[in-house]
Amino acid sequence: MKKYTSVDDIENLDQILQLAKKIKENPFDYKELGKNKTLGLLFFNPSLRTRLSTQKAAQNLGMECIVMNLNNEGWTLEFEDGAIMNGSASEHIKEAAKVISQYCDLIGIRSFPSLKDKDKDEAEFIISSFVKHSTVPVISLEGSTEHPLQALADALTIEEYKTTKRPKVVLSWAPHPKALPQSVPNSFIKMMKKMDVDFVITHPEGYELNPEITKGVSIEYNQDEAFKNADFIYGKNWSNYNHYGEITNNDPAWTIGSRQMNLTNNAKFMHCLPVRRNVVVTDEILDSDSSIVIPQANNRTYSAQTIITSLLNNLE
Amino acid sequence: MKKYTSVDDIENLDQILQLAKKIKENPFDYKELGKNKTLGLLFFNPSLRTRLSTQKAAQNLGMECIVMNLNNEGWTLEFEDGAIMNGSASEHIKEAAKVISQYCDLIGIRSFPSLKDKDKDEAEFIISSFVKHSTVPVISLEGSTEHPLQALADALTIEEYKTTKRPKVVLSWAPHPKALPQSVPNSFIKMMKKMDVDFVITHPEGYELNPEITKGVSIEYNQDEAFKNADFIYGKNWSNYNHYGEITNNDPAWTIGSRQMNLTNNAKFMHCLPVRRNVVVTDEILDSDSSIVIPQANNRTYSAQTIITSLLNNLE
Amino acid sequence: MKKYTSVDDIENLDQILQLAKKIKENPFDYKELGKNKTLGLLFFNPSLRTRLSTQKAAQNLGMECIVMNLNNEGWTLEFEDGAIMNGSASEHIKEAAKVISQYCDLIGIRSFPSLKDKDKDEAEFIISSFVKHSTVPVISLEGSTEHPLQALADALTIEEYKTTKRPKVVLSWAPHPKALPQSVPNSFIKMMKKMDVDFVITHPEGYELNPEITKGVSIEYNQDEAFKNADFIYGKNWSNYNHYGEITNNDPAWTIGSRQMNLTNNAKFMHCLPVRRNVVVTDEILDSDSSIVIPQANNRTYSAQTIITSLLNNLE
Repeated sequence: MKKYTSVDDIENLDQILQLAKKIKENPFDYKELGKNKTLGLLFFNPSLRTRLSTQKAAQNLGMECIVMNLNNEGWTLEFEDGAIMNGSASEHIKEAAKVISQYCDLIGIRSFPSLKDKDKDEAEFIISSFVKHSTVPVISLEGSTEHPLQALADALTIEEYKTTKRPKVVLSWAPHPKALPQSVPNSFIKMMKKMDVDFVITHPEGYELNPEITKGVSIEYNQDEAFKNADFIYGKNWSNYNHYGEITNNDPAWTIGSRQMNLTNNAKFMHCLPVRRNVVVTDEILDSDSSIVIPQANNRTYSAQTIITSLLNNLE
Repeated sequence: MKKYTSVDDIENLDQILQLAKKIKENPFDYKELGKNKTLGLLFFNPSLRTRLSTQKAAQNLGMECIVMNLNNEGWTLEFEDGAIMNGSASEHIKEAAKVISQYCDLIGIRSFPSLKDKDKDEAEFIISSFVKHSTVPVISLEGSTEHPLQALADALTIEEYKTTKRPKVVLSWAPHPKALPQSVPNSFIKMMKKMDVDFVITHPEGYELNPEITKGVSIEYNQDEAFKNADFIYGKNWSNYNHYGEITNNDPAWTIGSRQMNLTNNAKFMHCLPVRRNVVVTDEILDSDSSIVIPQANNRTYSAQTIITSLLNNLE
Repeated sequence: MKKYTSVDDIENLDQILQLAKKIKENPFDYKELGKNKTLGLLFFNPSLRTRLSTQKAAQNLGMECIVMNLNNEGWTLEFEDGAIMNGSASEHIKEAAKVISQYCDLIGIRSFPSLKDKDKDEAEFIISSFVKHSTVPVISLEGSTEHPLQALADALTIEEYKTTKRPKVVLSWAPHPKALPQSVPNSFIKMMKKMDVDFVITHPEGYELNPEITKGVSIEYNQDEAFKNADFIYGKNWSNYNHYGEITNNDPAWTIGSRQMNLTNNAKFMHCLPVRRNVVVTDEILDSDSSIVIPQANNRTYSAQTIITSLLNNLE
């Protein structure tokens, strides 16, 4: 692995999941690997879970972490080639990426989509620029179109909680008051396509995600129908992909509750968090034994530690 | 000790003070205790001394620290049970506390009072919610009604500087341009009640603190009278408790200076810092040998290290 | 070395450069030196390179770093002696510096000039106050009039890239849309005066720097003339020193490009970064082999590590 900015960067998922399980069993057994190595974490957007779990993962490996909130603590970057920089941007990505590459052995970047300019978002403008100009591996801490560390934690969680060889996994859209990125569902879909699962996506008509990503996956507009016999329900809102970044539906009937969960095969409820209680999913479900959102979040540490380990191993 | 969010959490003060002295003598002798352990520090409000001294304490113990400025770096939390989260709060304390508990072995939280809603402040709304939902011990880095790490540093300082077995300690109100919390005086009073001291509080009439906390303590409205024969003067402003959070007095006669200090038994001057020079106390006193505010602040490191040590010992 | 807030603090440059080269060869060989030591980094202004490289340097030495963004995370400091502190400043530098000195073994401070009050800027108001009141060594992370860590990185870079015993080094002013400090050119000039180089400054008439600093240095108003036979071109904008802090010239003819570089002796192009592409210097130069701005930035780590090493050695 040379970088981890997309689920597509995983060549052999089985191998990665084996490594993740080994790391989770003995998280402090690899402290020599990160010795004298530095992980730079650059945040263009807020972060709680990713920030904490990635720092924890680095610390487990004996690495030093340097955290920087760009925009707030640093300065505005220029990304356009050939720009005459007489505006507000004080540094070009070309210099920034190369310089940071000299201080850090790995660079993690969080950069949310605009949800306005689809082309720019789909080009993963900021993360791609870092990949292009950095001389060290880049990790996405959630980009405009993917959240691959989350997806690896999700895969590990399904591995741990599945009770049948080929579980039925349902990704269900749910309402949300704010326009949210498609990153988490995109990466989750890519991940499910790599796993031996019966995978269904359910969402209101018009909420189709990028067809290149959902290609080959069953889409079911009737949420109740989709939930039948499910072993895992992954709840998540996303904003409209076709009317890009808009909220065109807020139907509370899609809020996940007992009505739908009762249709499942005693399914486990998953969500990447943070979750809007009683909007995306009811208290009743979140506070029940069906919910595995807390151990799922715990796997973020091991997901990050696995990716850092793979990237560091590859450096040598 | 299972948590440290109030001076009330100290079961045996003598034992804690003995541990603090031992730690202060050889602060780096316990580096194994914190190995592979992480302290999460969550700040809902600004901090200088607490932030630096607690990090230093953790580092002395070989622990890793993860610092997070909530509100700025993270997101708004919801604390109400059963809330329909379609407003600005993006995560419920239930998830936040449980998730952070998985990344951190101890959680420190700073959260100032509103000074508007007395009931909510007295319920220690935020810290109590973390205590309730976290699965690891919680340390108050100053809450709405207490600053227990400060009070332990204060106790250690009095222990070190006292020249008689039972010194006279006076907590004196002083003016301040801003409405300040009652946390520091509350914790100091609770601490003095646990120590073998002759303790007096002096403040203008109407500035009485929570009577449940001051119960059994002498209150003297005449500042000069209170200062007579004192061995320690602890200067501190607080806003009005009865007219909750208001400033109803700004009398410069209460500014602590030579006039009052000359009435004492060559008393040492203490303050938790930051201190408004020439408003709370004069330059003359702060710059004199009577002032022990600097070594008092130094004890913040050992206070924090003692509490972290006690909590970590209890984990095992 | 007791502090490093100015290039003037270097007593023996040769010795420092030897140490820097030794450190750069084996950056992790001195991990015992920083053990149980803490570096406090206080930022009154944004920082990318300095923040990252100084943390990296400290980590290379086995030191702990505590980073604090003042103004944002902390509170406003009062610097005036005798102030009656009933305004917005909540803490006096006297307490702040002494308290932080107890938590940290070294203190680094970044504080940019006002570019309005020349006297205050030239007094290095904030850094001097910390030097005065701290009880541990202070390092400038760029002050109002100097950037001495940058200058040491510059000296090391020239040492590494020079191909003749006494190279010709040209500091050239260049245009910039914002009013910038004179710190970098000031420290660079002071450093060049300590080195065995043929040093020339070129800038438009009226852009003379502080004559006490440039005393004895050739100043050439014709940029083309200055560049002839140069081995190193150091590009940098600064705002007007005489019309203090103003931009009185924005002539694009001063933008450094092939026209001027072709006049040199195949000179290397240096800049402290961040650099405004196509305003200070053209893409063509920055993207060519002549540019050594990236390895120059890399030397920031070893510059910082050398200074920290010298200060720590001196503590013992």
